[in-house]
Amino acid sequence: MTENPKNAVLLLSGGLDSATTAALAKERGFTVHALTVVYGQRHAVEIEAAKRVAASLGMAEHLIESIDLRLFGGSALTDTIAVPKSEAVDQIPSGIPATYVPARNTILLSLALAHAEVIGSTDIFVGVNAVDYSGYPDCRPDFIAAFERLANVATKAGVEGSNFTIHAPLLHLTKSEIIREGLRLGVDYGLTHSCYDPTPNHTACGRCDSCLLRRKGFADAGKTDPIPYAYLE
Amino acid sequence: MTENPKNAVLLLSGGLDSATTAALAKERGFTVHALTVVYGQRHAVEIEAAKRVAASLGMAEHLIESIDLRLFGGSALTDTIAVPKSEAVDQIPSGIPATYVPARNTILLSLALAHAEVIGSTDIFVGVNAVDYSGYPDCRPDFIAAFERLANVATKAGVEGSNFTIHAPLLHLTKSEIIREGLRLGVDYGLTHSCYDPTPNHTACGRCDSCLLRRKGFADAGKTDPIPYAYLE
Repeated sequence: MTENPKNAVLLLSGGLDSATTAALAKERGFTVHALTVVYGQRHAVEIEAAKRVAASLGMAEHLIESIDLRLFGGSALTDTIAVPKSEAVDQIPSGIPATYVPARNTILLSLALAHAEVIGSTDIFVGVNAVDYSGYPDCRPDFIAAFERLANVATKAGVEGSNFTIHAPLLHLTKSEIIREGLRLGVDYGLTHSCYDPTPNHTACGRCDSCLLRRKGFADAGKTDPIPYAYLE
Repeated sequence: MTENPKNAVLLLSGGLDSATTAALAKERGFTVHALTVVYGQRHAVEIEAAKRVAASLGMAEHLIESIDLRLFGGSALTDTIAVPKSEAVDQIPSGIPATYVPARNTILLSLALAHAEVIGSTDIFVGVNAVDYSGYPDCRPDFIAAFERLANVATKAGVEGSNFTIHAPLLHLTKSEIIREGLRLGVDYGLTHSCYDPTPNHTACGRCDSCLLRRKGFADAGKTDPIPYAYLE
């Protein structure tokens, strides 16, 4: 397929980071094809958030792919392992936490690469962040660079001379900087879902790593998080 | 998880190459965990072949994962695109054919990587071949090397010091050499399925690239292919 430099594929989880990344991709002039993956995550409610975000931000397309990673397990998000909870960001234990899903971002980017190649796009956006994050190996610059190199030898498009770019515009931003960027671009964070372990009625727990990082980000930015938290009610 | 040097994950399609790779992995002393992926392939009958091969070769485990790549399409194997047919191997047009599935082997290796990390294995076997093959970019040595580098930065195991090895023991063998290796190790090729476009009763067509390469491999090896072909009946 002919290369179309204006089309981009975006991995959209429904969380704060990917919503902000979507807004940034649009600002950079891309026609954004969103891809959400249902992978058996404990917090599958984020899929509904992804649909709301895609509609709100005017994505050109929103595909939802399914792959059940519970077949492999090995993570608090896909297995019967408790999601770690803390009282504050500075109390989160160091090291890679139990919510790490083995090879998840490799799988997600592989699927985005497949979609990009079929629609003739060489631009893939992903909302990974290596500052206010959970220490996941597949959120670091080394990982993004290695995947970009792989994409160019793995595909027909790459072999025929196209150069894939994995855009990770949040990579070096703090959570508060991400939130400021999103607010500048009109992202409605009330539509997003970040919690790894929501209550049965889908309220964010407020104490998992993802909730803590989000809450601290809003506090540092001097903004109010529009979503409710079970822990604070 | 503690690294277990004797466990390996093998991508098992049910075809001739992956069956031979399974036998080679066992010969090298690995306990082989087979992984088959149902990806919406036209020739889904190969899944039944994978089950037969796994049982025949004594795999320690055989997981079957599903991801419907028809959502993206773009290939004769996953979309409404005709499978190219020829009369002989030397009449196959040059270039990457319509049966190329965008990013397929990247996706399959990503899933194998997830499974390997969860079971504490750093060895992944894949039956790609860059001699008697269809010109797919993700069957070449460059691709295997790039994925190996990615695996070591993408995973918790890699970051913590493990070194993943992507074993592709067929990479530089001709199809007849592969068949001789398999026969030496007792592989029953009557259990395997290679055809991209089988008849409604699951008989190999005999004229797709995969059938042609297989038939030539048996002829060159001076052996009889135990499976029937619709085209030759």
